Amino acid sequence: MAESSLRSTVSSADIDAAARVLANFAVRTPLLSSPALDERAGTRIFLKPEMLQRTGSFKFRGAFNKMSSIPAAARGGGVVAFSSGNHAQGVAAAARILHMPATIVMPADAPLTKRERTKAYGARVVLYDRVSEDREAIARDIADKQGATLVPPYDDPMVIAGQGTVGREIAEDMAALGLTPDIVIAPVSGGGLIAGVATAIKARYPQAMVISAEPQGFDDHARSLRSGKREPHRAEGRTICDALMASIPGEITFAINSRLLTQGVTASDAEVTVAVGFAFRELKLVVEPGGSVGLAALLAGHIDARDKNVVIVLSGGNVDADLFAKLIR
Amino acid sequence: MAESSLRSTVSSADIDAAARVLANFAVRTPLLSSPALDERAGTRIFLKPEMLQRTGSFKFRGAFNKMSSIPAAARGGGVVAFSSGNHAQGVAAAARILHMPATIVMPADAPLTKRERTKAYGARVVLYDRVSEDREAIARDIADKQGATLVPPYDDPMVIAGQGTVGREIAEDMAALGLTPDIVIAPVSGGGLIAGVATAIKARYPQAMVISAEPQGFDDHARSLRSGKREPHRAEGRTICDALMASIPGEITFAINSRLLTQGVTASDAEVTVAVGFAFRELKLVVEPGGSVGLAALLAGHIDARDKNVVIVLSGGNVDADLFAKLIR
Repeated sequence: MAESSLRSTVSSADIDAAARVLANFAVRTPLLSSPALDERAGTRIFLKPEMLQRTGSFKFRGAFNKMSSIPAAARGGGVVAFSSGNHAQGVAAAARILHMPATIVMPADAPLTKRERTKAYGARVVLYDRVSEDREAIARDIADKQGATLVPPYDDPMVIAGQGTVGREIAEDMAALGLTPDIVIAPVSGGGLIAGVATAIKARYPQAMVISAEPQGFDDHARSLRSGKREPHRAEGRTICDALMASIPGEITFAINSRLLTQGVTASDAEVTVAVGFAFRELKLVVEPGGSVGLAALLAGHIDARDKNVVIVLSGGNVDADLFAKLIR
Repeated sequence: MAESSLRSTVSSADIDAAARVLANFAVRTPLLSSPALDERAGTRIFLKPEMLQRTGSFKFRGAFNKMSSIPAAARGGGVVAFSSGNHAQGVAAAARILHMPATIVMPADAPLTKRERTKAYGARVVLYDRVSEDREAIARDIADKQGATLVPPYDDPMVIAGQGTVGREIAEDMAALGLTPDIVIAPVSGGGLIAGVATAIKARYPQAMVISAEPQGFDDHARSLRSGKREPHRAEGRTICDALMASIPGEITFAINSRLLTQGVTASDAEVTVAVGFAFRELKLVVEPGGSVGLAALLAGHIDARDKNVVIVLSGGNVDADLFAKLIR
């Protein structure tokens, strides 16, 4: 990780630069509000609906920003990435726009919709066993043999800066409404999204509290924020939040998050199911389980939001129709 | 219909006035775009997602604008409305905000979610048989006995002006993007939404083509626009577009629509199913069958949209979970 030792943090200016790179390629997602949600929560809630982003999650932002920085001479070797699904689609879609070949290493148990969509963008998909194989080793091997550039899912300054455009847009839209965000909540897995969001939000609103949300059990960020050092979660088995199963915070991301985040909260699979159903019935948005974990924590009462302006990032909407049908019933 | 004979048309200024009335109560819905949709359609498409409106459809706009005009002395008698579901919720939600009692006459076969949601807003629901009973007569009887004001679903200038704020926002947002809408498509049942939308759009963009979309068979607008006079559709039975089953264009609405609309198109239930599934998978929006009929007609190739800037109104998202699960599989 030569790059990360050279540049191990991300500035507000890096996010401004990412916004310029993304301007003609990423969707400028709106900031939504819902009277039904405000009433349910008893305060003013704003939603950043990243399921409306190109590829159905925020991941396109970081992937495209990173891949746009690959020198022309290195583009012919293409890119390789490991991902449970949303980063896979982000990289595959960015590769198609940038005319680069892409190979994606995905767990064999990733949701079908994520595998199919990744292939539909023209990427080659290599499956691995989540329990017995090391996805990073497989990806690095492909990178070495093909001369491909590895696009990390989160622990990279250019990826973090790209995800930070989510926070930059939130700050812009809240300012346009004449409002100050008191609390900003985002799902975390490796922590790239929230590191970028926190950097952008705190630059403009230093008093804002930025809170990470994780599936119950998969609470490596909540633990690490409490102890002040990177700690793995203790979960065995699975969660319905397939996008949020990273085992430990990233190095670069945690260096940012330990400085900027207020706390970490969690939500159970049952609480996530309630949130997905609420989004279907009241918000009319398709949110995948992992994308709803911040909303789930809020609806379950795990965040004291009284009299606060709260912004919740809904980070993606790539969910299989069968699972979605089950969750909304 | 004393009022309609006094004022049987709607001006752009009426829509401006409605926008002021609605400012603190309706959701200012965004104009969305989707790279996946642009690619599929081969042109630039913009979506006006009225499922994100308060109550899950555009109907709140017209109901609230109309009910805000009821004199204080008449408010105690409350309101009565007949509706298959979305107007019901719009009226019920507006009544709660305005502290007026509301009675809604709904068909016994209306989707469960629409009945339940109407009750949840505090309205009294009276069911009738769609085949054997006359909903207008039932509603007028309640109005007479209780001194309630009837809130018509579409054939009323204040209702049309409220729905017209959808078109006003489209015009504003397209102007902010520096773009001209070439085609604007909206679902029609009684024609109130599109009459308001067309009034607002044509005031700013006289060259824009405004096109109505209906379920196949329930094509009273397409027929009437061709012949130049109000004609009923010939359909027997049902369509999955439960919101779009009015039998003939409204008088006031058709006086506007026959002047401003370019043509009417239709989409089959199978084409609507494709559109609902596309919205789930690619747009991550929950759209009800009737709300997607314009998108369905476009995706099915019934509208020549090449090299055009096309705006499609997705008019609502109130769909039962069971039906939605069936449609997306």
